[in-house]
Amino acid sequence: MNPTIMQVVPVTFTYPVHFTEHLFDPQHSLLDDTLSGNRPASDQVPRVLCVVDDGVLAAFPGLEAQIQAYFAAHPDLCLVAPPLAVPGGERCKSDPKQVERVHEAINTHGVDRHAYVVAVGGGAVLDMVGYAAATAHRGVRLVRVPTTVLSQNDSAVGVKNSVNAFGKKNWLGTFAPPYAVLNDRAFLTTLEDRDWLGGLSEALKVALLKDAAFFGWLETNAAALAARDREAMDYAVYRCAQLHLEHIAGSGDPFERGSSRPLDFGHWAAHKLESLSGYRLRHGEAVAAGVALDCTYAALSGLLPETEWRRILAVLRTLRLAVHVPEMGSGAQDAQDPGSVLSGLNEFREHLGGRLTIPLLTGIASPIEVHEMDHDLLRRAIALLDDVQAQGHVPSPALLDPQGAL
Amino acid sequence: MNPTIMQVVPVTFTYPVHFTEHLFDPQHSLLDDTLSGNRPASDQVPRVLCVVDDGVLAAFPGLEAQIQAYFAAHPDLCLVAPPLAVPGGERCKSDPKQVERVHEAINTHGVDRHAYVVAVGGGAVLDMVGYAAATAHRGVRLVRVPTTVLSQNDSAVGVKNSVNAFGKKNWLGTFAPPYAVLNDRAFLTTLEDRDWLGGLSEALKVALLKDAAFFGWLETNAAALAARDREAMDYAVYRCAQLHLEHIAGSGDPFERGSSRPLDFGHWAAHKLESLSGYRLRHGEAVAAGVALDCTYAALSGLLPETEWRRILAVLRTLRLAVHVPEMGSGAQDAQDPGSVLSGLNEFREHLGGRLTIPLLTGIASPIEVHEMDHDLLRRAIALLDDVQAQGHVPSPALLDPQGAL
Repeated sequence: MNPTIMQVVPVTFTYPVHFTEHLFDPQHSLLDDTLSGNRPASDQVPRVLCVVDDGVLAAFPGLEAQIQAYFAAHPDLCLVAPPLAVPGGERCKSDPKQVERVHEAINTHGVDRHAYVVAVGGGAVLDMVGYAAATAHRGVRLVRVPTTVLSQNDSAVGVKNSVNAFGKKNWLGTFAPPYAVLNDRAFLTTLEDRDWLGGLSEALKVALLKDAAFFGWLETNAAALAARDREAMDYAVYRCAQLHLEHIAGSGDPFERGSSRPLDFGHWAAHKLESLSGYRLRHGEAVAAGVALDCTYAALSGLLPETEWRRILAVLRTLRLAVHVPEMGSGAQDAQDPGSVLSGLNEFREHLGGRLTIPLLTGIASPIEVHEMDHDLLRRAIALLDDVQAQGHVPSPALLDPQGAL
Repeated sequence: MNPTIMQVVPVTFTYPVHFTEHLFDPQHSLLDDTLSGNRPASDQVPRVLCVVDDGVLAAFPGLEAQIQAYFAAHPDLCLVAPPLAVPGGERCKSDPKQVERVHEAINTHGVDRHAYVVAVGGGAVLDMVGYAAATAHRGVRLVRVPTTVLSQNDSAVGVKNSVNAFGKKNWLGTFAPPYAVLNDRAFLTTLEDRDWLGGLSEALKVALLKDAAFFGWLETNAAALAARDREAMDYAVYRCAQLHLEHIAGSGDPFERGSSRPLDFGHWAAHKLESLSGYRLRHGEAVAAGVALDCTYAALSGLLPETEWRRILAVLRTLRLAVHVPEMGSGAQDAQDPGSVLSGLNEFREHLGGRLTIPLLTGIASPIEVHEMDHDLLRRAIALLDDVQAQGHVPSPALLDPQGAL
């Protein structure tokens, strides 16, 4: 019999994440530099298909014309068609026709593996277009232009894409690093407050996991961020993106083949809350509530000192992010009920595959992993957060005493 | 403005390629060892979904029962459902319902990122199931059990999957290394001669590109291979798979981001011939004709010495692989006609993206790359091969003289 061959395939993915403003201003060279920098042969003009979130088109009525003007002013690039508009938000991920539309445009306009899809929009649109681009011709080049806080600081700088299937979030997807990410701060100016603030929950999350100094900065600057200070937001987006990128590059498991997902702090509840709300809750809002829940659980279980728990809840409060939402329910819920947030624990285990692994904090920037959570303690945490949200302030220390009122 | 972050993500994919016999014999430990070797937690039994080529089920009527008996004898594994049969051959890649069926089975039976899809079949089935597995949950573990010469020595040991879309071969797909490849020589025994022999065209191809000693071995053993000598086939499969794996690991471009595809020797014509034949031609047969065409072109253009051209054609002849097929047409065809094999050149360029890059031989195991091919010379090569095939022998040297009969 022939001996076994152990195949080892090393692959290195490299992509730049740029931070800029007014990307589609015809005077701005960044997009042209990005697309014309790696031309296969000098006689070929790079072909570019633009796909744009219709929510962004509504917020920036001149954008479509500006994109066309940009390419008109840069004849070393070929815009193969007028920008293709796709529905913004989670609905674009739940409608299989949207992936088909992007595939059809890629096919019709001859976008090959050396051509580009430039996707402009929020995280959901980038996820959907990314999935279409990653599966066409085994992957055409994807340039992400994220337009929300959440996508600029988190999802769009990473290596994943997805759409929903079988009624399940992100059931279909691939790991596919982008060709480039172009973060344009001007897109953030028209965001609703809930999206401006909600996106900061991922910044808080990554600070809590990895960087006490960044958490301190968020504490100091939470009021300015809530008042829509643009310089503060610039730093929050940059530092969050940077921590996220460092995690992916240094984790040793960028394509998540293990059971552990260290960045998914607060996410078991967040995914379930989003789903229970029928996506009324935005991802960032759900993450804020999920982080509050797991921090409160950690505090009640004696892992996280109460003083640090109070600091975390104070930041969420200053950022006007709810620590309890109606979908979180009361302290009396049945974990077997699929309508209970607690059933999200098992769904999260199934989603990860293998063993349940949940990050919890023992302090700021000091996470550990646990493999089970106590349902009674979770119910106590939910009841406590319900109280905090209703009263509008963090309760007196006695509430955290296991012998106390709760 | 914040500085650009250059993200570098190193990923190493590792997978074993085993060579064995009677994999599903309940006494055989290889499959169990493969599936239970990397268990996420000791209390969990690995879940396994089997998907099997219906052509293989027809050739081995006891196979389905044997697979079930295997898992019954190995209670440390959980077969989640009876094996799912899918149509064999190219038709499974052209019918989107087949991918949906595999996705549905993955969803229904709770196959997560730590569970396994075991795909048993020819290259087309492995391509289709591989695409479904790679996109479900961003990739569930795929164990390939290739059952043909061509898949055991070439496609199934590599890092690609695909299905057809928009009437185009492999339009949808991803790069996704398998979890393991289990080559079972017993599956080859029932192959039709045309599949036994056709699969050797990839062995000839890789020998011509990379290994003069292997070409010499093929010359010496062509008659034994044609007589279905199993030991000879074992070595031919092993050495071809090994050269293929070495190429992928050492190419520096395993995910084919450049324009060059050094292993696609003879493939511009092969892809077109398959398509023109409505897939009457098998891939291996088309590759044989494509290799013959590009070798003849190289000989006519003075690149490849005539003595080596004669040796190559002699091996093809001994293996009973046609050097000219009806779809290749005559020496009078119009390259602009989409029904002409010559139009395959431009389609190949579009498929690669970027610049046309074609490997040609200057000798055995001595390839170069060219970026254009002369249509008149190609027409002469086609006419010459038509003649060789019709006459049943390689013509006298004068035919290769540009001043000669052609």
